Amino acid sequence: MAEVAHMIDTEVFLAFSTYAAIVILKMMLMDLFTSYLRLTKKVFANLEDTNLVKTTEDRRKCVRVDPDVERVRRCHQNDLENIIPFVVIGLLYALTGPDLYAALLHFRVFVGSRFIHTVAYLVALPQPSRGLAWIVGLFTTFSMAYRVITTALFL
Amino acid sequence: MAEVAHMIDTEVFLAFSTYAAIVILKMMLMDLFTSYLRLTKKVFANLEDTNLVKTTEDRRKCVRVDPDVERVRRCHQNDLENIIPFVVIGLLYALTGPDLYAALLHFRVFVGSRFIHTVAYLVALPQPSRGLAWIVGLFTTFSMAYRVITTALFL
Amino acid sequence: MAEVAHMIDTEVFLAFSTYAAIVILKMMLMDLFTSYLRLTKKVFANLEDTNLVKTTEDRRKCVRVDPDVERVRRCHQNDLENIIPFVVIGLLYALTGPDLYAALLHFRVFVGSRFIHTVAYLVALPQPSRGLAWIVGLFTTFSMAYRVITTALFL
Repeated sequence: MAEVAHMIDTEVFLAFSTYAAIVILKMMLMDLFTSYLRLTKKVFANLEDTNLVKTTEDRRKCVRVDPDVERVRRCHQNDLENIIPFVVIGLLYALTGPDLYAALLHFRVFVGSRFIHTVAYLVALPQPSRGLAWIVGLFTTFSMAYRVITTALFL
Repeated sequence: MAEVAHMIDTEVFLAFSTYAAIVILKMMLMDLFTSYLRLTKKVFANLEDTNLVKTTEDRRKCVRVDPDVERVRRCHQNDLENIIPFVVIGLLYALTGPDLYAALLHFRVFVGSRFIHTVAYLVALPQPSRGLAWIVGLFTTFSMAYRVITTALFL
Repeated sequence: MAEVAHMIDTEVFLAFSTYAAIVILKMMLMDLFTSYLRLTKKVFANLEDTNLVKTTEDRRKCVRVDPDVERVRRCHQNDLENIIPFVVIGLLYALTGPDLYAALLHFRVFVGSRFIHTVAYLVALPQPSRGLAWIVGLFTTFSMAYRVITTALFL
């Protein structure tokens, strides 16, 4: 990590920026998908939101919990718990000056695992498909964190 | 993104740091506000927390779900789902060397939209006020992500 | 913040990288701990997950809410709400070129407070132990955010 200031200008950093932006966008689409489901299924978390749709029902009945919406929200929550750590650790990892091919391998495996995780969650694929996708992403981040700690170590 | 190392020292990066710190502070205030409501309304998520207040009630009755607390928590969760992506994408965006005025526009619109979103959520303003504030913030982040991906593209 | 490009190569930045990686790893362990509890206690959020364990029970009864799992999840959620802001603010703080000893003090107090918070939450220590650990971490982040805003100020 001796010449970190120059590391920010490398192909590793460009690759990190690209993959981080892609996987964050994927996460934000969960937000849009939740809203889409809420509007089409008329399932809301707040009474004032029921004015967004036309309905002949009692509006208070639209404030309820729906299993499909909850599934998307759990998927989104798992993204928050895994993608944000990847982005933070990945940024520090990119600054440690890793080998380009090692870095690309980490970024591609992580981003791929999260896309598989999302599909497995939304379609409710039989386990352990989703579990495996989750654990692969987790250990990819652990591997990057190991390099950050061993390279930067300053306690 | 050819001379990214110099970008970190620019007015765009200073502006990003300022707006990112402000909007993260706003998000953290939701945490304090939740605690304030829990203490004043005597509504807790854990039995051991009920010792923090004086009460003549059965302490187990203080472990309950309260609609006002849940509203603040949903607002906080929406902050996590939108402000964290803004901060990550905004950092990478600031390093792509954008025009200062374009960057300030993005940062100001996003931070403004989140303050409006918070007020709309807490006061339960009629929709689509909160929905619009949310979607404006989302598309501001998408716009920055588009620049990051097209500038840095390295797959 | 005049020569920020050189700041990224300092002992402060190495220290930030180390503490940020440690505290993010601690947060990710909550994810593993939740999965461990779900598998050993046979408590799941999705019907398809019940195939991961052998059981003679009706599988639909394994899709339920368990107080121990919910406790770990609340602890994890509090980590997300506090550790992510620390990491973002801490990165910007490290780039403002603070004194090494002041920076180490901030990083150590924050990371220590979050380890105490986790133990206090999981073991359900009497309050205000967990509340104090939380507020110490919160004000450490506020202190760093104050330096970021006053140093970088560009609105």
